[in-house]
Amino acid sequence: MIPSKAQLDSAYSIVKPYVHRTPVLSSSLLNELTGSNLFFKCENFQKMGAFKMRGAVHAISKLNDNEKARGVVTHSSGNFAQALSLAAKSLNTKAYIVMPVNAPEVKKRAVKQYGGIITESEATIQAREAAAEEIIQETGATFIHPSNDTNVILGQGTAAIELLEEQPLLDCIMVPVGGGGLIAGTALAARYYGKNCKVIGGEPMLADDAYRSLKSGKIELNDTANTIADGLRTYLGDKNFPIIKSLVSEIIRVEEEEIRTAMRLIMERMKIIVETSSAVPFAALLKEQSNFAGKNVGIIISGGNVDLSELTF
Amino acid sequence: MIPSKAQLDSAYSIVKPYVHRTPVLSSSLLNELTGSNLFFKCENFQKMGAFKMRGAVHAISKLNDNEKARGVVTHSSGNFAQALSLAAKSLNTKAYIVMPVNAPEVKKRAVKQYGGIITESEATIQAREAAAEEIIQETGATFIHPSNDTNVILGQGTAAIELLEEQPLLDCIMVPVGGGGLIAGTALAARYYGKNCKVIGGEPMLADDAYRSLKSGKIELNDTANTIADGLRTYLGDKNFPIIKSLVSEIIRVEEEEIRTAMRLIMERMKIIVETSSAVPFAALLKEQSNFAGKNVGIIISGGNVDLSELTF
Repeated sequence: MIPSKAQLDSAYSIVKPYVHRTPVLSSSLLNELTGSNLFFKCENFQKMGAFKMRGAVHAISKLNDNEKARGVVTHSSGNFAQALSLAAKSLNTKAYIVMPVNAPEVKKRAVKQYGGIITESEATIQAREAAAEEIIQETGATFIHPSNDTNVILGQGTAAIELLEEQPLLDCIMVPVGGGGLIAGTALAARYYGKNCKVIGGEPMLADDAYRSLKSGKIELNDTANTIADGLRTYLGDKNFPIIKSLVSEIIRVEEEEIRTAMRLIMERMKIIVETSSAVPFAALLKEQSNFAGKNVGIIISGGNVDLSELTF
Repeated sequence: MIPSKAQLDSAYSIVKPYVHRTPVLSSSLLNELTGSNLFFKCENFQKMGAFKMRGAVHAISKLNDNEKARGVVTHSSGNFAQALSLAAKSLNTKAYIVMPVNAPEVKKRAVKQYGGIITESEATIQAREAAAEEIIQETGATFIHPSNDTNVILGQGTAAIELLEEQPLLDCIMVPVGGGGLIAGTALAARYYGKNCKVIGGEPMLADDAYRSLKSGKIELNDTANTIADGLRTYLGDKNFPIIKSLVSEIIRVEEEEIRTAMRLIMERMKIIVETSSAVPFAALLKEQSNFAGKNVGIIISGGNVDLSELTF
């Protein structure tokens, strides 16, 4: 059930030519502040602005020629919509994107800019799934889930491979937990490329489904998910949960105010623009700072797609 | 009158251990948009958030032991105040900083945080010079000018050395022009380390003293300087002007709206936080885009010290 090292190696060689090798940044100020040695893997500098490009490229690459000719479909209003659109363009196929009618104009524009073909649906999950199903019936396109897909998970793991190539002796890697694709991929990379490197998730208290899932041993949902970390409102799936269950050490939950503080610190001290979701693992580290003292900690900055006009501090 | 390659080499080896080697970032989107190959040297990631650390370290390092024991003094409300404070701390001496009473609290806090000793004065240049003079009389500290000092100029040139080490075939390097220290240092680096690498300045139309100085052949002042690029309101001096006159190809002037557009583009597309002054050379490139088509262009992102609460787009 756990993908092999060979599968991850293969994903890395497939994904590499289509993505940026993003820089790993450090900040002496944040090191002083936390007492840890922090290494930020800046996927906010990735193509289309987030790590999701990696999984999308890998999933499309694994299709056969017939499937590629018919295209891919997903429903997402976030980064995966852009990722699948740009990956499809890079790999000469089509991406059909189901977006809720109320999705922000700026997100629709980004998808169109990358060549994605948008179908609007009502905002409910049922309506979105029905719209995707209709496209599949009409076009024969292959559905690709944003996070609960083994090839997507393997692709997302390549960010941590690059991080570990630069910093082989990390004690742990911290990532945000949303749908579970990034943390599952990172856990595989840490297992196969790290040296006793733990993987720790950061999750908003207001959408702590993964924390509860690890406790109960089965996939839990969120009743509400009003967190400002809008990329983390989703829940785990049957492909990534087994990986998370067996390879992730811990999930640390943080309050909204802690996310805001972490985001401001990253932007002020590191001079980089990050999404709210990206601030969650750093918020988790700040919360349990003493546990990380003296440790070498990798943090994956998952993305940087923020609407600048909505930034308020 | 033009410092030698040996002097610049020496500055580089002196400065190196005290500064970050900042990354050089590219953006495929901005390359597509402009038709040039752009290489952004990210001095916004430098210690204290700006290239000014380089010149401050070099100037202090060149003092003899007696001078070092007595400390250094400058008047600045901007990045050089922080740079001199942090450089003095790194080199075990004291920095006396004259700041206008109306300087923003956040800037005073930053200077104090780096160990600078603040003296407040009235905001006029006369009052600031008088306050600095008084400190010199009392303490025997050495005055260090933020931009019109040969050792400062040589220190600032080290950013372009690093850029040219990574991208030896740049056709030109673009920098903002304020007091003239960065552009003079960059011009020396391009001359000694580049291969026919031009240096081009970007300057706000509202503070275009350097543009007019190059035209008239003598140092011109600004009547008013209300540009949003607040780091560029100053004028050239007798140490940097001869270097600029003999080694800088051109200065391109830009409107306030062009600076704002360039700043937003950099932040949205590159996901980095830059000061308004740092957006000026990119604004200059956008303005005369066709002249740079197909060229390899280095752009020095001079700093990232912005008050996030003042960011409005």
